[in-house]
Amino acid sequence: MLVYIAGSGAMGCRFGYQLSKTDNEVILLDNWEEHIEAIRSQGLKVTGDVEETVQLPIMRPLEATREADLIILLTKADQLPKMLQDIKGIIGKKTKVLSLLNGLGHATTMRRYVPDSSIMVGVTIWLAGLKGPGQAHLKGTGSIFLQHMQGDRESVASIVEMFNQAGLNATYDDNVIESIWRKACVNGVMNPTCTILDCTIGELFGTEAGLNLVQNIFNEFIAVAKAEAGSIDETGIWKYIMDMAKDAATHYPSMHQDLVQNKRKTEIDYLNGAVVFKGRRVGIPTPYCQMVTDMIHAKEALLGLR
Amino acid sequence: MLVYIAGSGAMGCRFGYQLSKTDNEVILLDNWEEHIEAIRSQGLKVTGDVEETVQLPIMRPLEATREADLIILLTKADQLPKMLQDIKGIIGKKTKVLSLLNGLGHATTMRRYVPDSSIMVGVTIWLAGLKGPGQAHLKGTGSIFLQHMQGDRESVASIVEMFNQAGLNATYDDNVIESIWRKACVNGVMNPTCTILDCTIGELFGTEAGLNLVQNIFNEFIAVAKAEAGSIDETGIWKYIMDMAKDAATHYPSMHQDLVQNKRKTEIDYLNGAVVFKGRRVGIPTPYCQMVTDMIHAKEALLGLR
Repeated sequence: MLVYIAGSGAMGCRFGYQLSKTDNEVILLDNWEEHIEAIRSQGLKVTGDVEETVQLPIMRPLEATREADLIILLTKADQLPKMLQDIKGIIGKKTKVLSLLNGLGHATTMRRYVPDSSIMVGVTIWLAGLKGPGQAHLKGTGSIFLQHMQGDRESVASIVEMFNQAGLNATYDDNVIESIWRKACVNGVMNPTCTILDCTIGELFGTEAGLNLVQNIFNEFIAVAKAEAGSIDETGIWKYIMDMAKDAATHYPSMHQDLVQNKRKTEIDYLNGAVVFKGRRVGIPTPYCQMVTDMIHAKEALLGLR
Repeated sequence: MLVYIAGSGAMGCRFGYQLSKTDNEVILLDNWEEHIEAIRSQGLKVTGDVEETVQLPIMRPLEATREADLIILLTKADQLPKMLQDIKGIIGKKTKVLSLLNGLGHATTMRRYVPDSSIMVGVTIWLAGLKGPGQAHLKGTGSIFLQHMQGDRESVASIVEMFNQAGLNATYDDNVIESIWRKACVNGVMNPTCTILDCTIGELFGTEAGLNLVQNIFNEFIAVAKAEAGSIDETGIWKYIMDMAKDAATHYPSMHQDLVQNKRKTEIDYLNGAVVFKGRRVGIPTPYCQMVTDMIHAKEALLGLR
């Protein structure tokens, strides 16, 4: 298969690196000049659980011309529309396009560029970091759950098999939407709150008022998720959040790293902001999500980011 | 008249100082030892628009024994119940008790200690500061609006007259509840938001997201105010807030000074928290006020203040 990784940050490099170990052809796509330059001149340096340098082709999205068998979308959420626009030329009849982006609402964006029969959605809990241009730091294990948009499991069986050859632990999941909501719930209750309060996950969950915030945001996510996905395992997701909060107690969530530590715009619009948007469509009020979205937007504006 | 000032911080000192210039006897009450000591040994030093040192009696609340004609309550909100408990001995049949505290819900507290026929509620926009124990800094002009709880204007006419002799600009107001809500609205939309976002009033009102926050909190205040007070001049209060925001654009509101600058517990429970409480009683949902109250509580907890 010819596989493009559209968005080759930390996670894109992990997928590109692991897939390059199989019988398939992998091409990285990205817009970060230093990153492209580094990988072209010195290869992709991998550190962490393995230490290795691999030669992988990388190009700007508009430079890709050969029709893809599979495109794995791993951009930042707000770069997705432009990426899809830029890679229109490599999306053919046989091309499958898989979104593994964090957050909500990406299938809606994809449908503006790709027919439903070509769309796959998924979620991954692999971790990855970048130590600099061309330097991926990969530790730990993870998994992928994915589904074909129209439920055509057979049409993507070879893709699941390829991921497993690459050791990426993929499972076809007839209810991947629940996994996507589970991950979004975890991020939606922890990310904006810890960012606004400037505290760790353990500090948030360790105060009564913090738990109230978590519970009220959670309730809105679940109400909207149920309207969108039908059955949702509310109890299971709550338990999952509580377990995550315990495991990651000393950590600041990624949005805190983005906004507070690195003064970068957040992905709030694809998390709590998306719940507000989806809630409005189905008539479910989401004042808590609205308020944390406004607070994060205000913080971004104060930092000159919007 | 024998007038006690129950709570002789900055504002209490202003009232004590100005009333001491009239024919009436004024006694300050407070629990701050250094403040009591300073005023007893060196008098109350006044700076600002006038420079003067005056001798004024000051005592701890439990030391006061003579029945009062008027008690002016000017404590911090969370000290009010204890103050009322401590001064029970000086509240007699002829005693009127006037609350000029910021925030909401104080009449309810007063009714646990004082009969309705003795209660007056009011609001003041005088300003005052303390430069240290026994040192009041008084600048600018202001006014007082007050009302007798049962609408018995005649029974408090002499008190209004006394305030005006002292230059305190008092007006009897048959709808003082609206003035109290107006002030609470201003504080309720600016105080927790600027505190959570760590920004000035101008910065808050200068962003679209900040204005959304203000508008959503305002709507809840108005809905609950209408349920409690009947007619409320919504348009007038909104205009008042916008004017205040322009005038005070470069300032941090008092709650920011309390929590962010001085790591002191805030009065959120008597502001947005009181709206949640009142809203629950009349069946009006107040998720935005609930959320900012939880955020401030969480911040207080993270600072070890609750």
